[in-house]
Amino acid sequence: MANPGTLQPIDSLKHPRFSQPATFFRTPLIYDAKGVDIALCGVPFDLPTNRGGAKHGPAQMREMSRLIRRFSAVGDSSPFDICNIADIGDAPVNPLISSASIDLISGFFADLRERGIVPLSAGGDHGCTFPIWKGLLQSSQPVGVIHFDSHLDTNHEIYGDFYNHGTLLCRGIEAGLIDPKRVISIGIRGTRFAANDRSFNKLHGMTVLTMDDYEDLGRKAVIAKIREVVGSGPTYLTLDIDGIDPADCPGTGAPEPGGISMRDAQVILRSLHGIDFVGADVNEVSPPLDPSGITALNAVNLMFEILCVMAPVVAAKKGRKT
Amino acid sequence: MANPGTLQPIDSLKHPRFSQPATFFRTPLIYDAKGVDIALCGVPFDLPTNRGGAKHGPAQMREMSRLIRRFSAVGDSSPFDICNIADIGDAPVNPLISSASIDLISGFFADLRERGIVPLSAGGDHGCTFPIWKGLLQSSQPVGVIHFDSHLDTNHEIYGDFYNHGTLLCRGIEAGLIDPKRVISIGIRGTRFAANDRSFNKLHGMTVLTMDDYEDLGRKAVIAKIREVVGSGPTYLTLDIDGIDPADCPGTGAPEPGGISMRDAQVILRSLHGIDFVGADVNEVSPPLDPSGITALNAVNLMFEILCVMAPVVAAKKGRKT
Amino acid sequence: MANPGTLQPIDSLKHPRFSQPATFFRTPLIYDAKGVDIALCGVPFDLPTNRGGAKHGPAQMREMSRLIRRFSAVGDSSPFDICNIADIGDAPVNPLISSASIDLISGFFADLRERGIVPLSAGGDHGCTFPIWKGLLQSSQPVGVIHFDSHLDTNHEIYGDFYNHGTLLCRGIEAGLIDPKRVISIGIRGTRFAANDRSFNKLHGMTVLTMDDYEDLGRKAVIAKIREVVGSGPTYLTLDIDGIDPADCPGTGAPEPGGISMRDAQVILRSLHGIDFVGADVNEVSPPLDPSGITALNAVNLMFEILCVMAPVVAAKKGRKT
Amino acid sequence: MANPGTLQPIDSLKHPRFSQPATFFRTPLIYDAKGVDIALCGVPFDLPTNRGGAKHGPAQMREMSRLIRRFSAVGDSSPFDICNIADIGDAPVNPLISSASIDLISGFFADLRERGIVPLSAGGDHGCTFPIWKGLLQSSQPVGVIHFDSHLDTNHEIYGDFYNHGTLLCRGIEAGLIDPKRVISIGIRGTRFAANDRSFNKLHGMTVLTMDDYEDLGRKAVIAKIREVVGSGPTYLTLDIDGIDPADCPGTGAPEPGGISMRDAQVILRSLHGIDFVGADVNEVSPPLDPSGITALNAVNLMFEILCVMAPVVAAKKGRKT
Amino acid sequence: MANPGTLQPIDSLKHPRFSQPATFFRTPLIYDAKGVDIALCGVPFDLPTNRGGAKHGPAQMREMSRLIRRFSAVGDSSPFDICNIADIGDAPVNPLISSASIDLISGFFADLRERGIVPLSAGGDHGCTFPIWKGLLQSSQPVGVIHFDSHLDTNHEIYGDFYNHGTLLCRGIEAGLIDPKRVISIGIRGTRFAANDRSFNKLHGMTVLTMDDYEDLGRKAVIAKIREVVGSGPTYLTLDIDGIDPADCPGTGAPEPGGISMRDAQVILRSLHGIDFVGADVNEVSPPLDPSGITALNAVNLMFEILCVMAPVVAAKKGRKT
Amino acid sequence: MANPGTLQPIDSLKHPRFSQPATFFRTPLIYDAKGVDIALCGVPFDLPTNRGGAKHGPAQMREMSRLIRRFSAVGDSSPFDICNIADIGDAPVNPLISSASIDLISGFFADLRERGIVPLSAGGDHGCTFPIWKGLLQSSQPVGVIHFDSHLDTNHEIYGDFYNHGTLLCRGIEAGLIDPKRVISIGIRGTRFAANDRSFNKLHGMTVLTMDDYEDLGRKAVIAKIREVVGSGPTYLTLDIDGIDPADCPGTGAPEPGGISMRDAQVILRSLHGIDFVGADVNEVSPPLDPSGITALNAVNLMFEILCVMAPVVAAKKGRKT
Repeated sequence: MANPGTLQPIDSLKHPRFSQPATFFRTPLIYDAKGVDIALCGVPFDLPTNRGGAKHGPAQMREMSRLIRRFSAVGDSSPFDICNIADIGDAPVNPLISSASIDLISGFFADLRERGIVPLSAGGDHGCTFPIWKGLLQSSQPVGVIHFDSHLDTNHEIYGDFYNHGTLLCRGIEAGLIDPKRVISIGIRGTRFAANDRSFNKLHGMTVLTMDDYEDLGRKAVIAKIREVVGSGPTYLTLDIDGIDPADCPGTGAPEPGGISMRDAQVILRSLHGIDFVGADVNEVSPPLDPSGITALNAVNLMFEILCVMAPVVAAKKGRKT
Repeated sequence: MANPGTLQPIDSLKHPRFSQPATFFRTPLIYDAKGVDIALCGVPFDLPTNRGGAKHGPAQMREMSRLIRRFSAVGDSSPFDICNIADIGDAPVNPLISSASIDLISGFFADLRERGIVPLSAGGDHGCTFPIWKGLLQSSQPVGVIHFDSHLDTNHEIYGDFYNHGTLLCRGIEAGLIDPKRVISIGIRGTRFAANDRSFNKLHGMTVLTMDDYEDLGRKAVIAKIREVVGSGPTYLTLDIDGIDPADCPGTGAPEPGGISMRDAQVILRSLHGIDFVGADVNEVSPPLDPSGITALNAVNLMFEILCVMAPVVAAKKGRKT
Repeated sequence: MANPGTLQPIDSLKHPRFSQPATFFRTPLIYDAKGVDIALCGVPFDLPTNRGGAKHGPAQMREMSRLIRRFSAVGDSSPFDICNIADIGDAPVNPLISSASIDLISGFFADLRERGIVPLSAGGDHGCTFPIWKGLLQSSQPVGVIHFDSHLDTNHEIYGDFYNHGTLLCRGIEAGLIDPKRVISIGIRGTRFAANDRSFNKLHGMTVLTMDDYEDLGRKAVIAKIREVVGSGPTYLTLDIDGIDPADCPGTGAPEPGGISMRDAQVILRSLHGIDFVGADVNEVSPPLDPSGITALNAVNLMFEILCVMAPVVAAKKGRKT
Repeated sequence: MANPGTLQPIDSLKHPRFSQPATFFRTPLIYDAKGVDIALCGVPFDLPTNRGGAKHGPAQMREMSRLIRRFSAVGDSSPFDICNIADIGDAPVNPLISSASIDLISGFFADLRERGIVPLSAGGDHGCTFPIWKGLLQSSQPVGVIHFDSHLDTNHEIYGDFYNHGTLLCRGIEAGLIDPKRVISIGIRGTRFAANDRSFNKLHGMTVLTMDDYEDLGRKAVIAKIREVVGSGPTYLTLDIDGIDPADCPGTGAPEPGGISMRDAQVILRSLHGIDFVGADVNEVSPPLDPSGITALNAVNLMFEILCVMAPVVAAKKGRKT
Repeated sequence: MANPGTLQPIDSLKHPRFSQPATFFRTPLIYDAKGVDIALCGVPFDLPTNRGGAKHGPAQMREMSRLIRRFSAVGDSSPFDICNIADIGDAPVNPLISSASIDLISGFFADLRERGIVPLSAGGDHGCTFPIWKGLLQSSQPVGVIHFDSHLDTNHEIYGDFYNHGTLLCRGIEAGLIDPKRVISIGIRGTRFAANDRSFNKLHGMTVLTMDDYEDLGRKAVIAKIREVVGSGPTYLTLDIDGIDPADCPGTGAPEPGGISMRDAQVILRSLHGIDFVGADVNEVSPPLDPSGITALNAVNLMFEILCVMAPVVAAKKGRKT
Repeated sequence: MANPGTLQPIDSLKHPRFSQPATFFRTPLIYDAKGVDIALCGVPFDLPTNRGGAKHGPAQMREMSRLIRRFSAVGDSSPFDICNIADIGDAPVNPLISSASIDLISGFFADLRERGIVPLSAGGDHGCTFPIWKGLLQSSQPVGVIHFDSHLDTNHEIYGDFYNHGTLLCRGIEAGLIDPKRVISIGIRGTRFAANDRSFNKLHGMTVLTMDDYEDLGRKAVIAKIREVVGSGPTYLTLDIDGIDPADCPGTGAPEPGGISMRDAQVILRSLHGIDFVGADVNEVSPPLDPSGITALNAVNLMFEILCVMAPVVAAKKGRKT
């Protein structure tokens, strides 16, 4: 096992940030993930029912991640000092046959699971999350889910299709990979196709915080609620960028006004230290809808915050001093 | 009289939202407004003194309204179930002779008034509102006005012209169509041409909430103030999109930083249930200044919130059970 | 049968071009196609292997077609005077299950065939053309094809998928709907995945004009060649907008420099009078890749040129005096 | 009278082109035009029937003219060495009352005429040209017109309005300011509202070169034709940027594909030496439709070519050695 | 000494805001600064380590300042009535040799200092501020600094270079021009190159308010803190636009989410009346990264707020009644 | 020595083109260039005198090169089959100290020269070419230069600086690295700072083809002229993207209308087989000025054409059968 810190991002004080091919946070590109503790990867998959483009997310997020420096705004340790972190490229996909993509993606993450590598992925649309779960998780140990989103994603099917950006929590729970009691959805809002669309969540005892709830509770209580729901068990974090306010993140397929501010998202993510993260993804950044790149930039800022709380947990599990 | 719910938007779960020609909220296009309770329409008129383009507003707002689903984020009834709502096309205009446009527009709305159809319009610049009033209202029954804007719009004239985006409240009051005591302007801010530009408002007993006032009162008290000012009488709502913060709605001729957030605007509009709306408009969305469409998207979100509070009132008047 | 000229576009000298909901060339929206000779419709379907967005093509093309006036630049008759032409909306699609879309689309066009209505469609990516053929054509009477494109579109499969933007000519010929001897592909260029990628075309006796061929022949001889290949039999025209030079039409998934100029495309299309068109489509306009709309504008200009040569043929078939 | 060369543009080899407030070609800003031979000015006026924004043309054209250097690509004399050339600001306009604008503009140019100053203006839409003529020309000496455009601009009226971008040649000829026999329109193309829309031109003996004519003649013969039509008499040049191909100049209200290339436009303008120019304008650049600025950049390149052929003529008239 | 109010901006009620060449707030362009109390100027200098373009800031900020009216949103006096304020053009720069630029810029501001003219500048990147200080300030009287920024700008060097956007406070303090005890940095946040990057600030007793501090204190206490730190001595205000939240100001080289809202920035700046401003700048607006211009518009709004608190102080010093 | 074809681009029929981190033409990323025959690399250096951004060129060009397939449009061999070709990353640069960058870049290319690796680079601005030459070439064997550009680039200095985008040919000839008799500049046009700016070229016997020359000769004779000038000796090709027409390539600092079409550029480059290329670069693509990416896409198309003529020559030198 390589010493932590063996893998380091390109030094931006030697090679300016605009130089060299783009990888996530300028980390080494290691397609075979050898010696890696936390794998940064893309899942360039989308299956949109309206405005798409999220399959181009990993490419633009790699580009914008040039701007991220090695230390978070808070705290004095860098994730790159305590874990070996690399860009392992993208999960394979079939751009025409979605069922093939689902198999390819789940295979890719199953391999990481077997090797004890923790993934932090960039979507793709939210349809990438169930295939990740299918590979990464096991029904013997269902996980909790911290779910930032403006939409519930608990449809049984859409247009007769069962595996897409709107059905993931349904599929994950059906497959026994997710423990619904330990699922919290935050940022829910926006117009709806149906009046009763929260029935699945209620039935399964999932926690839902709409923006009205969010505002009523206040940020501190929201953080406490997240911790209460997921507890100390293994937890997966999935952040749909449309959970964030479109003033911050306009470049996504279904922006819904009145969401969580970037400031709040940063503070919440920074507060999640100690949670037993088994993986995470940030998804639904659509570059064709984000010409300025601000959505991708904000997305990689959030991805980096996740990395900063994930790294100490991974390091601790591997018996390293942090 | 058709049963409520006879007219329905295209079912987005059958025909995806990117398909079919765009109408407001995907409602049927009924140029003659037959059987319609609430008429969605455009007023593609602008007469800009600086940056223009708002005459293209109805087209882009129709396009972006594809994204709106049939239920609001709150409550469990859809306006489409309790009223017959259709897109009746645009008011006629003359693009070169503004006085002709004013006559054409007021004629269009006079026809709706005579037929008891309540309009919810998309501008156009704010100069579209007085011609709407001229047709829709009658001096025998002056109405209250809920006015979201960054500007007061109480100029006597601009460049010697009397009918434009900056004079509407002046004209409406002069014509006896508006009861100044029941007018409230919310979101006022921005640099000014003159020091004393609030004199008209003071003289006539109009209520003005600047952003300083807004912040001092807080959102709840602002809602109470609106209700207090307009009371139970007939009321018109006109929302200049530049009342909203430019971080949310940059695509308008005269954006003024430091405005009302989309979240607040949503919550305020949702709270206006029971007010006796005789009509409403959302204006000053300028597509050439809004390449990403986010301003139009936010505008139609607000237009839909208005529809949701307007529909029960219209339904009740027509003796329908809601 | 309605008299020709019964259906007319909105008069842009009465209602300015920026006003009223957008339909193709401002024609009436008649979802059931009753009384229609030539049906303008969208096929909002894409199944991209790289950059997508063409499913939004019909919406933006309708918008940009506001700018088209009722007479072509040449000749003194308007298609709207000799045929009844309307926008019949979009073919139904399933955005998630491509095989379902193919059935829905072919069903839509089969209905037109049965009713003797000639379609002029806007894609969608080029994968929309085979489903159109499947519904519109019959193996008892294979048609010739005038195919503008930078790519040959004669792949046997891509990523294991058989029905997409790269396989249409292969599928059409296999199904006996297309007579390969009467197929001409014009504008072929661009880098290639394989060295021998013209073998299918050679095997089946299809005619291919690369840009080198095009330049060597000159525009006049190209026109003669098109007429020679398709002859007097029934013919379908499919124009992939990437056949046109990206200086004119940048907003498409796979732009290839060095193509056919808009001027040449206009002159060629205008010269195709008298050809027995049974249908046509213009495809691969991708609005997310075309922020200025110039690609869509050029596409509808070409669509209108096609309409101008198609209308006299349809009128003549229906026994009308033109 | 100041010596020629007294007024000089900012030296871009001392003050980089991105620095200092923008004036046309970086010339001095002299609002009162004192000592000026050729006046560069803006006419920020538009009265659009569809997509507008040309009133912002002068501002963006000044910005993009930073890139123009003091010598043309051909020849070895700079206009700034033989004439005193300055930016005299914009003609006054009334943004709300078009008749007032027409009077203000014509007054501005009448003053230049009286002082023997030759104007080279940037529109504004093409409606700016008749007010210029009204001030600059006199019916005692009608002038020839070199008219680059895709549209004929010989409507009698539009929407009941007589003074706009589509009626200028009609108004100029009626007023006796323009000699129709010495008018040549070049680049005519695009769809049309009516079949017979060239009747005014034929009636008055005006010369029209459509793109078909242009191509048939070839560039050299076109140049000869221009010289033949306007002869040696006083001549005004008006260049609607939509005469140029939209591949070069997309940022205009009514782009029509298949136009004159920038290369051809440059060569034609350079060949017009010796013509007795009494004024010129370049119009219809619409910044809101030209986000990259390429249209404005091309427009000021053409404006500079005009300046290069205009300056020797003006210098010669003023008895200066060039 | 000219009477205050001698110099006035162009009257936007006579000449619409889109007309005439752009200067800051439409003030007269007086390159030699004669009779000027407060000089508006540009410093078109950047030396970026990543995304640049700020040298184009002055040009775009002049353009967007057309929208600013002569009175602030609050208060009833206009700065133009109490001081003579003009645009004096840009400081000279050498675009290739940065040391030459530094000398040119400092010479330009030394001249203003000698003539008792107070500058309000638009950058340029933040590297423009030290050269301004070098010319404007004197080590005999070090000044306090109100520093809005997301970054500390206290690097000793970057890439071996000592004079750039990241070193200004270090250089200013070393040179004795700045009193570190009277420096307050507000809005600090974002990822960091090193863990200990606040050591310089601590060592010198500078005050730093991170966004966490900002939020904890609240806006009122922040204002009080600013006043406490800078006290009554001479003070310079430098506002890096990346101190503001990227939802408001995305068009800058290094946007950091979670910053100060425009509303807060406006209220804070308005509260700074009475502070002894010796100069101020607003910098890091990068037009190539700000296609909509919203960042420049917000920047000039802030610049105008600064002008409004600066003018009474300057007027008072010059013995004028305000 | 590795067998040719050992290194292969990612197979786009397995991994779709939108997937995986971007390298030039999807080739392997080999920072140490081991086993490489032709090195693809970036030189992210610019030192602009006006509009910049070319330092971001390599990143965007890598992104757009995803679209290039492994075979050229003409011929039946792929460069990847006959040479080992890889992306070796970017030359090191110092973003603040240009002299340091020049040393770093020349060191990088000196290393390639010593190892017999032929570079094909992506700029950066044209100032990257002299440092490349300084490392790659030796005065003992001056090379010929094929120079596509709208500008001559033979300034002695600009703003007192000697090493930049406008002086490269001057420096190359002074240093004895370039044989001026074997230099041909193609595409020269645009306004000029001085009348006599071709004197250096004349003095040294360099060949210059302006666009007038280009048009007079015709494409075939231009090709012959290129071959005549450079002959059979070692030759370097440098292509400033502003040599191409801005209708094709708008995204560059100093676009000059009326240039070489992409079609002509493709045909010319394809005709240069057999020339003894020692290196080549394509430069001046500025992503901030190229939001759609079309300039970068065209640039990598041209870069690939160069690769296709360069590879057989390199293969032949290495004694390989092609």
